[in-house]
Amino acid sequence: MSTKYFLIYIIFFVFSGLVSRAESGEGKFGEDSLQLRRIADHALTRSSTYAWLAELCEQIGPRLSGSTGAEQAVQWAFNKLQAMGLDSVWLQPVMVPHWDRGKPERAAMHLSDGRRETLQVCALGGSVATPSGGIRAPVVELFRLEDLERLGRDKIEGRIVLFNRPMEPRLINTFDAYGSCVDQRSSGAKEAAQYGAVAVLVRSMSLRMDDLPHTGTMSYAEGRDSIPAAALSTNSAAALSRALRLDPSLEVELEMFCRNHPDALSHNVIAELRGSEFPEEIILVSGHLDSWDLGQGAHDDGAGCVQSMAVMESLLALEMRPRRSIRCVLFMNEENGQRGAARYAEQSALEGLRHLAALESDRGGFSPRGFSVDGAEGVRQVALAALTNRLDLLAPYGLHFAAYGHAGVDISHLKDQQVALFGLVPDSQRYFDYHHAASDLFETVNKRELELGTAAMSALIYLLDRYGLPADVSRPVIR
Amino acid sequence: MSTKYFLIYIIFFVFSGLVSRAESGEGKFGEDSLQLRRIADHALTRSSTYAWLAELCEQIGPRLSGSTGAEQAVQWAFNKLQAMGLDSVWLQPVMVPHWDRGKPERAAMHLSDGRRETLQVCALGGSVATPSGGIRAPVVELFRLEDLERLGRDKIEGRIVLFNRPMEPRLINTFDAYGSCVDQRSSGAKEAAQYGAVAVLVRSMSLRMDDLPHTGTMSYAEGRDSIPAAALSTNSAAALSRALRLDPSLEVELEMFCRNHPDALSHNVIAELRGSEFPEEIILVSGHLDSWDLGQGAHDDGAGCVQSMAVMESLLALEMRPRRSIRCVLFMNEENGQRGAARYAEQSALEGLRHLAALESDRGGFSPRGFSVDGAEGVRQVALAALTNRLDLLAPYGLHFAAYGHAGVDISHLKDQQVALFGLVPDSQRYFDYHHAASDLFETVNKRELELGTAAMSALIYLLDRYGLPADVSRPVIR
Repeated sequence: MSTKYFLIYIIFFVFSGLVSRAESGEGKFGEDSLQLRRIADHALTRSSTYAWLAELCEQIGPRLSGSTGAEQAVQWAFNKLQAMGLDSVWLQPVMVPHWDRGKPERAAMHLSDGRRETLQVCALGGSVATPSGGIRAPVVELFRLEDLERLGRDKIEGRIVLFNRPMEPRLINTFDAYGSCVDQRSSGAKEAAQYGAVAVLVRSMSLRMDDLPHTGTMSYAEGRDSIPAAALSTNSAAALSRALRLDPSLEVELEMFCRNHPDALSHNVIAELRGSEFPEEIILVSGHLDSWDLGQGAHDDGAGCVQSMAVMESLLALEMRPRRSIRCVLFMNEENGQRGAARYAEQSALEGLRHLAALESDRGGFSPRGFSVDGAEGVRQVALAALTNRLDLLAPYGLHFAAYGHAGVDISHLKDQQVALFGLVPDSQRYFDYHHAASDLFETVNKRELELGTAAMSALIYLLDRYGLPADVSRPVIR
Repeated sequence: MSTKYFLIYIIFFVFSGLVSRAESGEGKFGEDSLQLRRIADHALTRSSTYAWLAELCEQIGPRLSGSTGAEQAVQWAFNKLQAMGLDSVWLQPVMVPHWDRGKPERAAMHLSDGRRETLQVCALGGSVATPSGGIRAPVVELFRLEDLERLGRDKIEGRIVLFNRPMEPRLINTFDAYGSCVDQRSSGAKEAAQYGAVAVLVRSMSLRMDDLPHTGTMSYAEGRDSIPAAALSTNSAAALSRALRLDPSLEVELEMFCRNHPDALSHNVIAELRGSEFPEEIILVSGHLDSWDLGQGAHDDGAGCVQSMAVMESLLALEMRPRRSIRCVLFMNEENGQRGAARYAEQSALEGLRHLAALESDRGGFSPRGFSVDGAEGVRQVALAALTNRLDLLAPYGLHFAAYGHAGVDISHLKDQQVALFGLVPDSQRYFDYHHAASDLFETVNKRELELGTAAMSALIYLLDRYGLPADVSRPVIR
């Protein structure tokens, strides 16, 4: 885009009515509009969001539950929140699973003509190792779990099963595409083991064709045979599939060194700014501190953690003493157990805490587009109404989306405590390029996109704190 | 995000009512909804958009007007459109400016203590060269053009002026931030020359702090002294500013080798699918084929070109014979002259063509959010109403934005021909990271984000073709 005509438009549109009024916070919303403008200005010019993410990713890096990285991250976050001057900061102990992949995995196809081709592979989280020296077996390619029954034990026993259903590119929201094929990863091993498979290889949950395997959680049926489970990069899955068509008797060799250790002590990190008027009403803002062991957990979910911390920073910096108690919770072990979330919810029930609302950011540090809303029947209707009623205030910041949907894995544990659940919804197109892969690095996060997420979260927290939630959607009451 | 709870939500939300109905195209919009679904499916699974961008960027690369690259791009686009099987494809001749930067520029600060520090610099498009051997002069730092008059000739004569006003990070739309400081680049040299400056250095128009200088067009006053003008990377501008505060008598040395050549013959590339019912009514879809000479012109504006071509491909592939004539126009010389756009508009007036609407994509291949609307008084009101009336149809594809605003530099030349002007509005956060810099590369374009732009453009063209535009906004007529 060039300059001359552009300037004419800028003069006309920006420095005339509409935009400048929205940007300066004047207009029909008055005070709230001005406060949201202050919040966004802070996020885009003075927030620590991006600097914190750099530290978390580049100084600590991956932080799978039970790892040294996870413990460093707990200490790091505790120290940062402690230094901020909040009313209280504490660690909530929780025992977490401790799994690691050991040495790097290896896999290759052995073609009938003697050629050998390397496959890009990584163990799925929680998988058992192969026997020492690896396994080698012919391969059967399937596209859905139900194909196991259709084929029957004869065609599966003694083989490696390749689950190769790709993410559906036609779904606009990539989380829907993920949801429509992640059963291969989560349940492929336990289902295939029932038919005598010796291992499973799962096509990585990514819409890109590239050489990066994407890990993620999987589980075994209790007391049943556990077989090794690994992810193939999309390119390797496609290559294996092509090769199988030409050479059905090819064999794949797979060696993995995963280890399950005893549960380890870890912690949720919690910080609170006490409400000035309704301290017993808690509004929670959250992300999860653990990540997978590949990459740096930048988008998943370093972004959500630093954004949640930055919401607290912003309240202090802008001297917005909240009416209700605002709690930042950085959950441990979202990725492979959700023990932190379960522990937090259990403790909340035990203490009879009243959580008015909870917000989670766990969809990457991308340009925010709005919020999803969830909660128990009755609660989520109120929550959606409260959000949509104020959507005009959020529109100048590119926030337009408000609909029922998944809000967050961790906060969903609070659902039966009648908590209104909100999820930050950023643009989803790039998330699965990085998700659970070695590419989930700090450098893939755009500073402004991340900061706009902080602004969006701070804005929602401000509105929830200021207006609460009406007790009944049919009779909205603002107190 | 982990799997177990996610799956429960997916089952509940995706495969139940709302989403699946929108995705399958059922519901209150019926036929249109189904057609937009077909369009999006094509864009996300079978479109050539991304493959074409790879060719244009990686096989041809930069294509400044008058360059070999520009002529290769004209031939490439002509061949692609020709091979598609459209009704007609032709080249529209136009004489364009031909400037090049010659050898790479160099710049450095010479501090009073004898140290020398390199500055990252590039000539602005259209700048004159320095004398052979370069120039060396003390520097005065200014933040706005008006500062020239405030300081006066005494403090400026014989010096290099550094214009160092940064893009305003608080503006949410980065194009507004660009518009609010690009006067330094476009007019800095001609203004400073009037006060006796020997050269100008302009802080790059980018919100990132990095080492990439960003070029762009600038102009001289006719018949006045032309002084060399260059962009500094944001890091170099900040370093020079810091150094000046400590050492006001430092000098900067600058050498540039730019050359202005005689105007060259080039072409707009035009392709048409003739309307079956109203062939005399033209709907135009466009981008600009030229780019700056740094990088590959991937976002600016390779993206807009391949998206426009892919709109035509999609009409053919989906056998959507249009009622009106759909024209794909790839303009030449948007960046430094707009000669192609002027030529096209002139010819249109000469032939008395009736352009109903024109759509331009020139804001990068990012996730689309909607459309801006422009046009002459009376026309733009109709255009905005037509768009907002059908925004519910576009919402399932993440398109929510519809407002008056700049639509496109090239199509703005058609404004006084009573054409409704639409601009594709993608997310703006990353655009100026790459704009006019060596980083504007194919690899920075996400395939799905680019393809969703194609889908958005195809959808708007479909709706404009099917329904036309009512003659009067107060009385919408659909024929």
